[in-house]
Amino acid sequence: MADPSILVTFPTPSSSPFVIEHVSDEFTSVCPETGHPDFGSIVLRYQPTPADAPDSKGCVELKSLKLYYQSFRNEGIYYEAVTNAIRDHLVSLLEPEWLQIVTEWKGRGGIRSRIRADHGEVPSEYRG
Amino acid sequence: MADPSILVTFPTPSSSPFVIEHVSDEFTSVCPETGHPDFGSIVLRYQPTPADAPDSKGCVELKSLKLYYQSFRNEGIYYEAVTNAIRDHLVSLLEPEWLQIVTEWKGRGGIRSRIRADHGEVPSEYRG
Amino acid sequence: MADPSILVTFPTPSSSPFVIEHVSDEFTSVCPETGHPDFGSIVLRYQPTPADAPDSKGCVELKSLKLYYQSFRNEGIYYEAVTNAIRDHLVSLLEPEWLQIVTEWKGRGGIRSRIRADHGEVPSEYRG
Amino acid sequence: MADPSILVTFPTPSSSPFVIEHVSDEFTSVCPETGHPDFGSIVLRYQPTPADAPDSKGCVELKSLKLYYQSFRNEGIYYEAVTNAIRDHLVSLLEPEWLQIVTEWKGRGGIRSRIRADHGEVPSEYRG
Amino acid sequence: MADPSILVTFPTPSSSPFVIEHVSDEFTSVCPETGHPDFGSIVLRYQPTPADAPDSKGCVELKSLKLYYQSFRNEGIYYEAVTNAIRDHLVSLLEPEWLQIVTEWKGRGGIRSRIRADHGEVPSEYRG
Amino acid sequence: MADPSILVTFPTPSSSPFVIEHVSDEFTSVCPETGHPDFGSIVLRYQPTPADAPDSKGCVELKSLKLYYQSFRNEGIYYEAVTNAIRDHLVSLLEPEWLQIVTEWKGRGGIRSRIRADHGEVPSEYRG
Amino acid sequence: MADPSILVTFPTPSSSPFVIEHVSDEFTSVCPETGHPDFGSIVLRYQPTPADAPDSKGCVELKSLKLYYQSFRNEGIYYEAVTNAIRDHLVSLLEPEWLQIVTEWKGRGGIRSRIRADHGEVPSEYRG
Amino acid sequence: MADPSILVTFPTPSSSPFVIEHVSDEFTSVCPETGHPDFGSIVLRYQPTPADAPDSKGCVELKSLKLYYQSFRNEGIYYEAVTNAIRDHLVSLLEPEWLQIVTEWKGRGGIRSRIRADHGEVPSEYRG
Amino acid sequence: MADPSILVTFPTPSSSPFVIEHVSDEFTSVCPETGHPDFGSIVLRYQPTPADAPDSKGCVELKSLKLYYQSFRNEGIYYEAVTNAIRDHLVSLLEPEWLQIVTEWKGRGGIRSRIRADHGEVPSEYRG
Amino acid sequence: MADPSILVTFPTPSSSPFVIEHVSDEFTSVCPETGHPDFGSIVLRYQPTPADAPDSKGCVELKSLKLYYQSFRNEGIYYEAVTNAIRDHLVSLLEPEWLQIVTEWKGRGGIRSRIRADHGEVPSEYRG
Repeated sequence: MADPSILVTFPTPSSSPFVIEHVSDEFTSVCPETGHPDFGSIVLRYQPTPADAPDSKGCVELKSLKLYYQSFRNEGIYYEAVTNAIRDHLVSLLEPEWLQIVTEWKGRGGIRSRIRADHGEVPSEYRG
Repeated sequence: MADPSILVTFPTPSSSPFVIEHVSDEFTSVCPETGHPDFGSIVLRYQPTPADAPDSKGCVELKSLKLYYQSFRNEGIYYEAVTNAIRDHLVSLLEPEWLQIVTEWKGRGGIRSRIRADHGEVPSEYRG
Repeated sequence: MADPSILVTFPTPSSSPFVIEHVSDEFTSVCPETGHPDFGSIVLRYQPTPADAPDSKGCVELKSLKLYYQSFRNEGIYYEAVTNAIRDHLVSLLEPEWLQIVTEWKGRGGIRSRIRADHGEVPSEYRG
Repeated sequence: MADPSILVTFPTPSSSPFVIEHVSDEFTSVCPETGHPDFGSIVLRYQPTPADAPDSKGCVELKSLKLYYQSFRNEGIYYEAVTNAIRDHLVSLLEPEWLQIVTEWKGRGGIRSRIRADHGEVPSEYRG
Repeated sequence: MADPSILVTFPTPSSSPFVIEHVSDEFTSVCPETGHPDFGSIVLRYQPTPADAPDSKGCVELKSLKLYYQSFRNEGIYYEAVTNAIRDHLVSLLEPEWLQIVTEWKGRGGIRSRIRADHGEVPSEYRG
Repeated sequence: MADPSILVTFPTPSSSPFVIEHVSDEFTSVCPETGHPDFGSIVLRYQPTPADAPDSKGCVELKSLKLYYQSFRNEGIYYEAVTNAIRDHLVSLLEPEWLQIVTEWKGRGGIRSRIRADHGEVPSEYRG
Repeated sequence: MADPSILVTFPTPSSSPFVIEHVSDEFTSVCPETGHPDFGSIVLRYQPTPADAPDSKGCVELKSLKLYYQSFRNEGIYYEAVTNAIRDHLVSLLEPEWLQIVTEWKGRGGIRSRIRADHGEVPSEYRG
Repeated sequence: MADPSILVTFPTPSSSPFVIEHVSDEFTSVCPETGHPDFGSIVLRYQPTPADAPDSKGCVELKSLKLYYQSFRNEGIYYEAVTNAIRDHLVSLLEPEWLQIVTEWKGRGGIRSRIRADHGEVPSEYRG
Repeated sequence: MADPSILVTFPTPSSSPFVIEHVSDEFTSVCPETGHPDFGSIVLRYQPTPADAPDSKGCVELKSLKLYYQSFRNEGIYYEAVTNAIRDHLVSLLEPEWLQIVTEWKGRGGIRSRIRADHGEVPSEYRG
Repeated sequence: MADPSILVTFPTPSSSPFVIEHVSDEFTSVCPETGHPDFGSIVLRYQPTPADAPDSKGCVELKSLKLYYQSFRNEGIYYEAVTNAIRDHLVSLLEPEWLQIVTEWKGRGGIRSRIRADHGEVPSEYRG
């Protein structure tokens, strides 16, 4: 079962704003209708709350992010729900300035899909 | 005959706005002038009405979309008419915040074509 | 001799605005200085006047466009003049909302060239 | 129904041996199990019987080859059977020195396929 | 658990020799040391026993191949063992003229791997 | 009209064997059936007779080769005949150890073609 | 020595605004520190003063541009100075609406570089 | 130890604004957690203070930049800290109009990362 | 210092011959002349002694291979010597049927290099 | 003037045979007919005489190779002569088991060229 409690953070290393992007090409979950595996990639982009902000939640630690993604492995869940769930889990964890999840899925029946969910004011250069 | 009644929907899984993109590389119809097959790809992009909107029409179901596209297989129809027909059918079905259809067609006589039809306020990052 | 009278149109199939793009990778004319052939590609983009506009001129028919391009085959003409001539001929024919011609030319003397000529308010996503 | 009687030939233009290759990226037939369309490409390679050979059957004419391929459009047939049928039809027609058909098929269920059927002594440079 | 009993066959459609290749880009198993998932692609190539051979075992059916590959999903197994197991299972099933399995694995610790296991006289054009 | 008398040579610069390859991406002739232009590329490969051979014919001069190719510009001629004509003209001119012409043609009706004509013992690395 | 007097112009062929781009992939100069050659590419983009403007300076002639670039061949000069010098020379010559020079340089010590110098109001689509 | 004192400058060669970009594909440091090496690329972009500005700090010299990057070779430091440190060091050195550092890191555990840190008003064309 | 004692093995998992390939894109050592880092990739290919061979040495374990490669990080050594050293170390360890090391190195002074060292009868498909 | 006396060697580091390849993408000389610069790349491949051979000449040192190539910068010389000259100079220097020079030249008049000159028994994997 997808488990956000796996996620841990470390303090933001700077008070100047900057942008972090992590791309995982090895995501897999299970189609809730057919039981067949789905394969996709996940892009996470966000601007952490600065080091000097009160109650700064910091940045997500990379290994915990990998394990969190792996927790979807045998869960039956739709593309759209995966995307929204990851956005919501990471927003709760990081309380970032803004955050974006983009998932891309390999073809099924000749159609490949891409879902994008933003939180906050994602800069225009990361939209699309 | 292209048949929009094939299309079915499922409820939007979130009340936060997000963007869905489905790309089909396996579209074929027939040229109404020559009777020869045309081959193309179709990109559908849209932002569904949110889950908590009154009368939300939801998202288009992927398998029904595939069957709907297949219903053009033996229909004689121009590039421009295919593109406008698909836009109009999906807008009626989904009543989305915005929606975009982009079709790209393999070369004929050394010329390849691309048709783009938008509905509503398509964000600038998806125009072009 | 380049001959715009070859061009014919068909009625715009929709009253909703949409964008048409035709790319020809097989354009050739002759350098007026050296007599050697030039090879290039031509992109035509435009938004036709809508179906319900008074005096709508419609869309350019694809086969006539091909023949029109072929009529430059043995004409001695500069890159810049080709580009401007095609823009002017098609604007006269279609009276479109906007129209754009982009020509790209294979290298001569280690330099390759690209000429872009716009008519009307070409959307920013098609500039560049 | 796939119809080899569509195929016509023209005389081999030379008595020196040479190799002809035609690649079609726009092949479609129907899966006999599911009724869904299959999309693929077809490579035909062969060495025609020379012009001065007795009973030379010549070369396959390109437009008739296109129409022959189109005759598979609504036929339910497996990948392997398509490949063997085309090989056998063209071998009967051309009686070539050698001939090869390679079909490549877009992914189904995450698996894409390629079938190769040779006739006669296909040179090693075309095997694989 | 990887389960070769899932695999089914259909009769070879021709008595002329031909070559079949199936490429799966969506293979995943589990590292037996770390418990982390491994991701890879699998190429299967073989020449089936001809239709007219006594005791011809035929060709592997594509959907059963997909399900067989999926049966490795939660099995802890090394790259080398996956490759040899699949070769041995398919050779038992098909008794082919020859057969080849090539697996390619995404990077771990900056190193990506490829394992190739042949059975019988794999033609030189498929070695490497 | 294609005119081999345009071709000129210069002496082979070495008595050691070596291989020369010239690739032209800007070839155009006219389809004898439809009158429409054909576009293709031409690869010429050969090993010249050595400098110290009696009656060495030398190497083809590059500018004359370009002009010779241009002389096909308005000639109605089939792919196969172009390929064989160029081979024969250059073999007469150069009397090379071996020579090869490979022509590749842009798609017509969704089919693209490639013709290869060899003279003498073309090394295996250049076949295919 | 780099010599702007080589540059010549021809009259702008149209009074409608349009954009010209010339890309040279064959630029070389010499590093003033080490004496080793530098290799790079140069993009020139500009909008010429229209044909009907008083004192229109026109467009740069392509062959003279090539010779001008060649005049840097044995000059010791830094990347930044090359870029600024070419911009300044061409602005003096053409007095264009706007003009842009982008130079890209092959790696030295594992670092590759790119310098961009604008003149006037370069449209946003050409910045970056 | 990363050592900004290695960095040296030379005077800005022009008073007109221009943009400098240096890309290093050969950056390596050490993961502070595991002690394993990290490999990445670093893009530096900035607009130097003009030549005629009072107290212009000029441009960073390329060889000193290489040596500065090499000084991270055996330092244990996180991706985010590398990126912020380089930005801060170069901003102190150059006092530029604006400056940007983008680091991209090869995959670890199937996830690859990219960090972007801006200083001042980085033009929109360089954001993203 | 490069340290082959880091390398460990595991038993060959099959008695049928098969081929193993490991590609590392993250190799770095130091130029013994200049002290600057060199960056390259290393391909290891080999056929292990079969499981049922007397005194089978087995296969190299992947993590130990990574650590062994890392042990070159601060060693001053030429391309050619790296390549030969790795071949000799792995041949001693594995006593394989055959083994091959191919190293590729990023450009220095505009020249990039590739060194290939074989042991035993490397099959022709892996040469080149 | 091209000057082979610039070339220096170092001793072959191993008595086992191995193959060395150096690729230079930054070669330029001058066309003896037009005086315009030619740009190309040069591949050098060879197997050095082993360390334990009597009178082993060793390997060519990389920096001297770069300077030797630079000595062609302002020399008027044909493609074919460049290729043969470099082969002959390096064969004299290295007396290798075998050696190969392949030069590739950017397009002139729409034709790009490639010249290959071998010495001794170049293995088949490097021919073509």
